[in-house]
Amino acid sequence: MSDSALQYAATHTAEHLEHLKELIRIPSISSMSQYHGEVRRAAEWLANHIRTHIGIENARVVEGVALPLVYAERIIDPSKPTVLLYGHFDVQPIDPIELWKTEPFEPTLVGDNLYARGAVDDKGPTLAALKAVESLLATNGLDINVKILLEGEEESGSESISAYVAAQAAALACDYVLILDTGMIDKDIPTITHSLRGMTYVEITAKGASGDLHSGGYGGAAPNPLQALAWVLGDLKGRDGHINIPGLYDMLRPLSDAERTILDRQSQERGPAMMAAAGLSTFTGEHQYSVMERITSRPTFEVHGIIGGFIGEGSKTVIPAEARAKVSLRLAPGQDSQKVFALLKARVAELAPEGVQMDVIFLNGGEPLLLPFDAPVLNVAAEAYGVEFSHPVEYVRGGGSIPVAALFDQHLKAPCVMLGFGLPDDNVHAPNEKFHLPYYYAAIRTCIRFLAKLGA
Amino acid sequence: MSDSALQYAATHTAEHLEHLKELIRIPSISSMSQYHGEVRRAAEWLANHIRTHIGIENARVVEGVALPLVYAERIIDPSKPTVLLYGHFDVQPIDPIELWKTEPFEPTLVGDNLYARGAVDDKGPTLAALKAVESLLATNGLDINVKILLEGEEESGSESISAYVAAQAAALACDYVLILDTGMIDKDIPTITHSLRGMTYVEITAKGASGDLHSGGYGGAAPNPLQALAWVLGDLKGRDGHINIPGLYDMLRPLSDAERTILDRQSQERGPAMMAAAGLSTFTGEHQYSVMERITSRPTFEVHGIIGGFIGEGSKTVIPAEARAKVSLRLAPGQDSQKVFALLKARVAELAPEGVQMDVIFLNGGEPLLLPFDAPVLNVAAEAYGVEFSHPVEYVRGGGSIPVAALFDQHLKAPCVMLGFGLPDDNVHAPNEKFHLPYYYAAIRTCIRFLAKLGA
Repeated sequence: MSDSALQYAATHTAEHLEHLKELIRIPSISSMSQYHGEVRRAAEWLANHIRTHIGIENARVVEGVALPLVYAERIIDPSKPTVLLYGHFDVQPIDPIELWKTEPFEPTLVGDNLYARGAVDDKGPTLAALKAVESLLATNGLDINVKILLEGEEESGSESISAYVAAQAAALACDYVLILDTGMIDKDIPTITHSLRGMTYVEITAKGASGDLHSGGYGGAAPNPLQALAWVLGDLKGRDGHINIPGLYDMLRPLSDAERTILDRQSQERGPAMMAAAGLSTFTGEHQYSVMERITSRPTFEVHGIIGGFIGEGSKTVIPAEARAKVSLRLAPGQDSQKVFALLKARVAELAPEGVQMDVIFLNGGEPLLLPFDAPVLNVAAEAYGVEFSHPVEYVRGGGSIPVAALFDQHLKAPCVMLGFGLPDDNVHAPNEKFHLPYYYAAIRTCIRFLAKLGA
Repeated sequence: MSDSALQYAATHTAEHLEHLKELIRIPSISSMSQYHGEVRRAAEWLANHIRTHIGIENARVVEGVALPLVYAERIIDPSKPTVLLYGHFDVQPIDPIELWKTEPFEPTLVGDNLYARGAVDDKGPTLAALKAVESLLATNGLDINVKILLEGEEESGSESISAYVAAQAAALACDYVLILDTGMIDKDIPTITHSLRGMTYVEITAKGASGDLHSGGYGGAAPNPLQALAWVLGDLKGRDGHINIPGLYDMLRPLSDAERTILDRQSQERGPAMMAAAGLSTFTGEHQYSVMERITSRPTFEVHGIIGGFIGEGSKTVIPAEARAKVSLRLAPGQDSQKVFALLKARVAELAPEGVQMDVIFLNGGEPLLLPFDAPVLNVAAEAYGVEFSHPVEYVRGGGSIPVAALFDQHLKAPCVMLGFGLPDDNVHAPNEKFHLPYYYAAIRTCIRFLAKLGA
């Protein structure tokens, strides 16, 4: 029964806040090796906390190929549903430090907001899910199987959890995955992310002469790999936003009218604010599709950087022997990262100009995800989540990728339920990160209701 | 009379070589501030050497706005011709030091070649011109006015000499400028460079959002300044090598049939070797013009570097707020660097895509130079120079720019005679720089004959 658990949560708010502060005070920056001891300390703190406070005695630190993971499980009956809770206990670096108004690792409450690195990404939401389990266990209300898998490398490549999930897929088998690491589209609008884009991230290489040349000696007659990249990148995507890679759009799963209606409405509602937030005078790209459809449900082609030649101060007249472009395609549901890579590679070979050898190197990729917004488990989640707010639950398609969600999808074949408790102005990955503290308690209550309903 | 001077030069070869070695041993690297004391020491060595050995007592170090210059003059009769001798006594850095086979600043004779940084660029040729003056003065053979202007910043921007020539144009007035700082097209082929290209070097800037965006949040709908640069750079120059800037080609001074015949022949003779030296499978660009015409007598458009976004290891999905491209146009005779800049700026404004603000910033420029290959002073020079070799004098148009030549052209309105004594394999600006020592003595004799003939 969730009422007792909700009652438990209501009477333990002060304690739950203190626990969150304890976890936040550990500066577990995973991308900086000098903080790796702190990442391990956060793992140990969590394993210990799950044993002593949450109530699952088998919680333990699991050595990863890089940094440690935390795993715990409570199996009451294999015939009952199993939920895998995921969260991460590592955080982003704190640079530029001078822009912080409070100590980054000393959680500071200002009004309703708890300021600290990691407060919302992702220590607050992660601990909220655990506190829901604690509340249910303390009141004998947990009637499903729970597995808990937490990682300390979400901000630095997720190497350990990737290897672990691939190797332990059978042991991690579950019916649903619950992830609290996404955002709300605006304050007090409950937001379920039900689709994510995949990615094919490549380097396009261009080689001309055997060494750098001087434009005074060869300019006008030698191939210039930077110019070659300009031609090819300019041809790959037109000024109309269309990506000129034959076959790319054939793979797309078409949107239903209901899906497109949601995206059109969201474009109307959110478009102007998004434009203002980015300081844009206009949106660009495929104008025949709504902005939200472009950003979440169409493949994209973006150039992220071009390497080669002279980029210092002043002028130098080099014709570089080689240049490379970092390019990604975001992939929409239906598309496959390796197939897109093959199409891109073939297209670049066709477009390479005279005298320049071009190739495409796969750097990384992931598959798009789609859980139909009318899937039964989302209805259960929406009910548990929606009662916290007066606004109906908003189903959004994410324009980005959450690699771990794709990982669970690939190896566990279980639908990912992603409930958002972050706000657009939470300064994730930036100075003055905060967590709107009422959402910590709302997240605990939501997870209590969701887990209780799954067992009902 | 040049015979006595030539005799003097012949009997002083050992001494002239020792003097060159002394000058080379001063590590006068102008682009590294820790060597600026050495640049000054080289200036002082030269001023002293001109006073005590060459025979002009007013030689002095002139303070420049940055590093010192050396100036000397011997005016015998204002009605007689005046030649300004130019050379530079600074050198390039020696990195990568581990590739040197001998000590960079200890001149080492291996066979006929003197290995050392600065041996051929430009201490050897500079001292050769001075040794010609010494030989003529020692034998009472100098019947013209001579001005000597040497700089120590040729490898680092020529700031001091630029200011000095502009300010002292009247005092530096001359009929001819003699520059020994160019190359020969191949061993034992006397080479006079009679044309140089000018340059318009710019940065093209592209601005999109007010800050960097994440392609997961905005990819597909936000303008990408790197993509904008690709479109614009791709449009500015076609795959056929044609530069799509209206008006650019209208300024070109047409080639005469005689000039084109030389370029066609040189393309036949030198093209395959140039292609092999650069490791190219093909020449590119405007195939309707010969390779040498493309490289020396057509304007070019080259991208030298693109700044913006992510260029580190791995992948990051940034859509940069801003990106910049370093681009130069080499200009052929008839074109004007500021007019070309204005045309380019207007064209980029036309080509800028939706949502991206683009601009063009002038970084530096210079004008093209042309001394017709049948100019009388070149005939005199060719006669003085050609007798050293069995191959007829080759007149070449340089594809690059020599800013100081443009400077003399602009302020002194005197034709520049550029006689080459460097070889293509002399490793200029690279490890194991050398000077083919027989050319040191040939340069001394050539200058003796040239200066004597001008006075005849």
